[in-house]
Amino acid sequence: MVMSRTWGLAMSSVVPRVTFVGGAGGDWRVEWMAATRGAPLPAAATVTRIEADAFAEPPDARWVLQGVRSHERYTERAEKDRVALIQEGLGRPDSVLAALIPIRKSDAWWALPQDERREIFEARSRHITLGARYLPAIARRLYHARDLRGPFDFLTWFEFAVPYAAAFDDLVGTLRETEEWRYVTREVEIRLRRV
Amino acid sequence: MVMSRTWGLAMSSVVPRVTFVGGAGGDWRVEWMAATRGAPLPAAATVTRIEADAFAEPPDARWVLQGVRSHERYTERAEKDRVALIQEGLGRPDSVLAALIPIRKSDAWWALPQDERREIFEARSRHITLGARYLPAIARRLYHARDLRGPFDFLTWFEFAVPYAAAFDDLVGTLRETEEWRYVTREVEIRLRRV
Repeated sequence: MVMSRTWGLAMSSVVPRVTFVGGAGGDWRVEWMAATRGAPLPAAATVTRIEADAFAEPPDARWVLQGVRSHERYTERAEKDRVALIQEGLGRPDSVLAALIPIRKSDAWWALPQDERREIFEARSRHITLGARYLPAIARRLYHARDLRGPFDFLTWFEFAVPYAAAFDDLVGTLRETEEWRYVTREVEIRLRRV
Repeated sequence: MVMSRTWGLAMSSVVPRVTFVGGAGGDWRVEWMAATRGAPLPAAATVTRIEADAFAEPPDARWVLQGVRSHERYTERAEKDRVALIQEGLGRPDSVLAALIPIRKSDAWWALPQDERREIFEARSRHITLGARYLPAIARRLYHARDLRGPFDFLTWFEFAVPYAAAFDDLVGTLRETEEWRYVTREVEIRLRRV
């Protein structure tokens, strides 16, 4: 596969890859999953998140989604610095709950110029501001998948402790009411509990 | 290969893929190629540009670079509309000259927030303004490759008629003097003539 040839690049500096596997023997047990917009994903009993270049697909995989940790597309300096001060990392011992929410946006969204997407994303939908309101309780990581030509544009991952499950419901519920979400054509919510 | 599984997506709406092959029997003859920054690419006699999902690698390929036609990352509405009025497409009969310039930027660039990258890109380096100055004579197409984890972040493609070769030299020379170009860690210029 030609993508693995580096033609002179040290692989250490490429964007990290993530693979999510929906299967039967993974790290996170599926509590429920539902398509909130568009086509569902096949039902799976577990989800595993693998941040690694290489990846061996398990024979019982129901689906495989790949993305990359890429650069920020909308965040400005002041927002970046503020979030960096308060956010916490993934893998906290008490974060026994998680959510994987793959999202796809419409062609109309992607045809907008950068300033109009930023305007909808933050000035009118307060996406960054809303997410920051739930920090550090709800840790999250955004993976980009659009340029990889997968079925979703983003694979969003969240981890939180049991007392914050209702707060997480609030967060995703509020985002779904925004102008930005009018451009979401497919969204699957997968709620998870650590095995 | 998992990337080809769509899990419910009509492939027609994914971002188009491009493949550039450096080889011996392609559509564009290499007049010269040189690394202006960083490691060179292996010498090739011809280059072929293939905008298609599927692609059969020729046995004599010296290198293969892939990218996607993705959404705009910096262009604002007024700039987009102005460029749309004056630019012309690829494939004009008199465009017998072309250039492929793959570019990689530093980790420092990609760590900048969106507003600081935009500030360097246009407010201080006038990237969009400079390119527009050479429209419609120099047609161009930008392909993104960073999220594909290839050796370059961008594969830039230009086509122009013989009288505009000096103007093209001016354009790339001016860009290389900008603040933006301080973040370029690798750049290979490949100058081509249609076979």
